[in-house]
Amino acid sequence: MSLKSADIQFMQRALHLAEKALGKTSPNPMVGAVLVKKGHIIAEGFHRKAGTDHAEIVALKAAGAKAKGATLYVTLEPCCHQGRTGPCTEAIIQSGVKRVVYAMKDPNPQVAGKGLAKLRRAKIKVDGPICEDEACYLNRSYIHWMRTGTPYLFAKVAITMDGKMADHRGKSKWITEGRVREFTHYLRSMVDGIMVGAKTAIADDPQLTARVRNAKQPMPIVISSKGKLPQKLKILKAKRTRPTVILTAQDVSDTLQYWLSHRGHVALHVGGTAGKVNLRKALRELGSRGVTTVLLEGGPTLIGALSRLNAIQEWIFCMAPKFLGDAGMGISQAMPNLPIANAKSLYIRQVTQIDNAVIIVATQKF
Amino acid sequence: MSLKSADIQFMQRALHLAEKALGKTSPNPMVGAVLVKKGHIIAEGFHRKAGTDHAEIVALKAAGAKAKGATLYVTLEPCCHQGRTGPCTEAIIQSGVKRVVYAMKDPNPQVAGKGLAKLRRAKIKVDGPICEDEACYLNRSYIHWMRTGTPYLFAKVAITMDGKMADHRGKSKWITEGRVREFTHYLRSMVDGIMVGAKTAIADDPQLTARVRNAKQPMPIVISSKGKLPQKLKILKAKRTRPTVILTAQDVSDTLQYWLSHRGHVALHVGGTAGKVNLRKALRELGSRGVTTVLLEGGPTLIGALSRLNAIQEWIFCMAPKFLGDAGMGISQAMPNLPIANAKSLYIRQVTQIDNAVIIVATQKF
Repeated sequence: MSLKSADIQFMQRALHLAEKALGKTSPNPMVGAVLVKKGHIIAEGFHRKAGTDHAEIVALKAAGAKAKGATLYVTLEPCCHQGRTGPCTEAIIQSGVKRVVYAMKDPNPQVAGKGLAKLRRAKIKVDGPICEDEACYLNRSYIHWMRTGTPYLFAKVAITMDGKMADHRGKSKWITEGRVREFTHYLRSMVDGIMVGAKTAIADDPQLTARVRNAKQPMPIVISSKGKLPQKLKILKAKRTRPTVILTAQDVSDTLQYWLSHRGHVALHVGGTAGKVNLRKALRELGSRGVTTVLLEGGPTLIGALSRLNAIQEWIFCMAPKFLGDAGMGISQAMPNLPIANAKSLYIRQVTQIDNAVIIVATQKF
Repeated sequence: MSLKSADIQFMQRALHLAEKALGKTSPNPMVGAVLVKKGHIIAEGFHRKAGTDHAEIVALKAAGAKAKGATLYVTLEPCCHQGRTGPCTEAIIQSGVKRVVYAMKDPNPQVAGKGLAKLRRAKIKVDGPICEDEACYLNRSYIHWMRTGTPYLFAKVAITMDGKMADHRGKSKWITEGRVREFTHYLRSMVDGIMVGAKTAIADDPQLTARVRNAKQPMPIVISSKGKLPQKLKILKAKRTRPTVILTAQDVSDTLQYWLSHRGHVALHVGGTAGKVNLRKALRELGSRGVTTVLLEGGPTLIGALSRLNAIQEWIFCMAPKFLGDAGMGISQAMPNLPIANAKSLYIRQVTQIDNAVIIVATQKF
């Protein structure tokens, strides 16, 4: 392997390009590509959304015949399988590129090193991984979904300084205000689905839409053991952009299923015990349907249950500088009581102030 | 009044100078001064600590005869009373300065506009206030102490994301780690006193010292209804740099008082009801002794009691990205149960990440 500092620079550029499609490529990863000849970038590209050209292809098309003899920087190992688009390895070999630098291998078992091997067999020099941590972080949800078959879970929690998600009357409107709510809608536009429990769905009657211009709408997901939700709920209205998925513990009557499907929605019986939906099965069901990321907006019961399964990969705390008192509904309620030494620490990734609130993004260590 | 943008620039410089003595001037305010002639700074100064020259005097001494005809920018109205140092107004008049620009009036009733009036009577042009918000924020503790006679209270709280200050076994060592603890020692070096309740004093046996090089040591303050603390406590050792003050509800026996004074400490009977120290009286007692700032490092009982008295002006949350569960000791325990609409919001002043913790500084609105 022979990597130079220039390689890092060009890969950083490719990562920057990849990130332009943040939240738009699902179920595909974000990928950026840069073509370099004699130390200069001659073409660039990134994957815009599933079904469109991969990043390498965008860059190669832009370069045309000039690609011959160039170095290709690509943030993810090029694919070697026929998907909705042809294998990238073929196009790269055809183009006459003489060297490929990659940031990370593709965890997709259909690729997983086979893409690189194919390039090497065609006498293309292959160097990498490089900037692997950044590349893995950028596509952490894709990697998680690929490896586990379940969606990457973001838990969004609006919380006071004394750890409360609602006051002693159960009211949570509004712990945070103004631009923090705009931020929430931005988050919603980034994910494949938004999950709440039946309790939240009924108490708050949320729309679960991303109220951002031209936003991709997430799939509303409700965890409801019987699947019986009030028909007047906003998420059960007919002709929504994204139909609602209800995951149930019990079998759902044909009548209810018919009523739901008539409005475009669906109830999926994933099973469960003691009247509780089997959440692991629910996540696998969602993963198998191409839901790679889910924003969890539920209350402490659902958050706690998923947290105990170690199923929450990332937390987005929206902290309001207020106190609601001990009778408020606390996030601690659903958390196991741990001695300090055993309390696993999350890893803080981002801290921002929005108006008079603090946003803390923290992930599991990985 | 005739203020120009250059005036703001010079006042910003004076404020910057004032801040150099952050935490060192008590019970005096921080003050900075700049002498300007023909648009150029000819001398500067700031008040370093109580008993030394005031900022104006430092600048005037540095300028010497050149001060004649200059404009003096000073962050606080010059004093006109004889304190440990002579009145600044006299020195300013003597110097031949022709214009004085001030940021804020001195809330000290001995000054409170009289300083400015004296200058005007001497035919010096006086302009201001200017940059008043910054100046008031910088000296918020001085202003509070001057107006109320009680110390400005900073509550420092090491807390988890679920609002817990200790685990279900009562252990709080260590919610936050590494450089956050260094930050705590820095905070201690900035204040006149550190307050804890008897419970914390006994359970944690803290030293309550600022372990920072050449730090000014704060006065350890313990709220203890009977004043009876275990004799082996670190804060009751003999010959500490700063003697400990114990504020009690009940009268303290001569034997105990003798034992304490023998070691340099003191118990002050401030009174109280139902076995609880009257905290308002305790704060007034401290204020009258020149304690202008107190860092509250107590548990939720003391924090809650002071919070209900509306006596905490500023919060320093050191947030660890962990959960300790519902049985942990929560800060909410001592807070009144409020509906969201009635929960008064603090005002976020600063958000920082230190290692894997988030520091949120929030004040009451003022």
